[in-house]
Amino acid sequence: MEQTLKIIGKIHSELKRIEDCPLQENEKAPEAIVEIFPEFIEGIKNLNPGSKILLLTWLHQADRNVIRCVPRNNYDSPMIGVFSTRSPDRPNPIGIHSVKILSIESNRLKVSALEVLDQTPLIDMKPVLN
Amino acid sequence: MEQTLKIIGKIHSELKRIEDCPLQENEKAPEAIVEIFPEFIEGIKNLNPGSKILLLTWLHQADRNVIRCVPRNNYDSPMIGVFSTRSPDRPNPIGIHSVKILSIESNRLKVSALEVLDQTPLIDMKPVLN
Repeated sequence: MEQTLKIIGKIHSELKRIEDCPLQENEKAPEAIVEIFPEFIEGIKNLNPGSKILLLTWLHQADRNVIRCVPRNNYDSPMIGVFSTRSPDRPNPIGIHSVKILSIESNRLKVSALEVLDQTPLIDMKPVLN
Repeated sequence: MEQTLKIIGKIHSELKRIEDCPLQENEKAPEAIVEIFPEFIEGIKNLNPGSKILLLTWLHQADRNVIRCVPRNNYDSPMIGVFSTRSPDRPNPIGIHSVKILSIESNRLKVSALEVLDQTPLIDMKPVLN
């Protein structure tokens, strides 16, 4: 099976530069708009305001060649394996974000605190893990 | 940036056919072995037995054209949008699995209950969301 991702939508955010992004969503990230592209609209028909969902994004500015890194920008730390971190710089820069749907208008969902850059591609949405 | 996934490893499981798979990991899924490919071994250096991690897999037998489906194989239900389900049949069939590392031997991690097929490609691992 082809391992090329389909982009199902994109994020609209006031975070325009990487330097603007908090490291985790509980560190004062702003609300954001999730735009779903027309061919995938049928897929969101049963989502409702108030629901908690996972958004999967493709962190398009990441460095995909990173295998070891320093944790949370602490450059005095020894390098650690990237799979014990949540660094966006990794072989497959997939972001997982737990958000609440605040409102839905046609193909645009307003969601709670989300720490990704404006124009970040969306690749999946699903109910939160219990 | 290229949106083609890198396969970082694969799952070894006694689940050989889709019919063998439980619908969620708490429904008696077996333990499994996660094999990391040589070029990514440095990335797991700081993982330890006892840790809880998220595994991201590429559910390679999924149907990527599904936008609406019936929930949990209940064929009497009306069709619902795929993004309010965790069906593997979806535009980007990425599985998210919360597991515990039981033991590590070189590039092979034994993990707790995992409901994916033998030979499923692995695309990422990261610490669990709080």
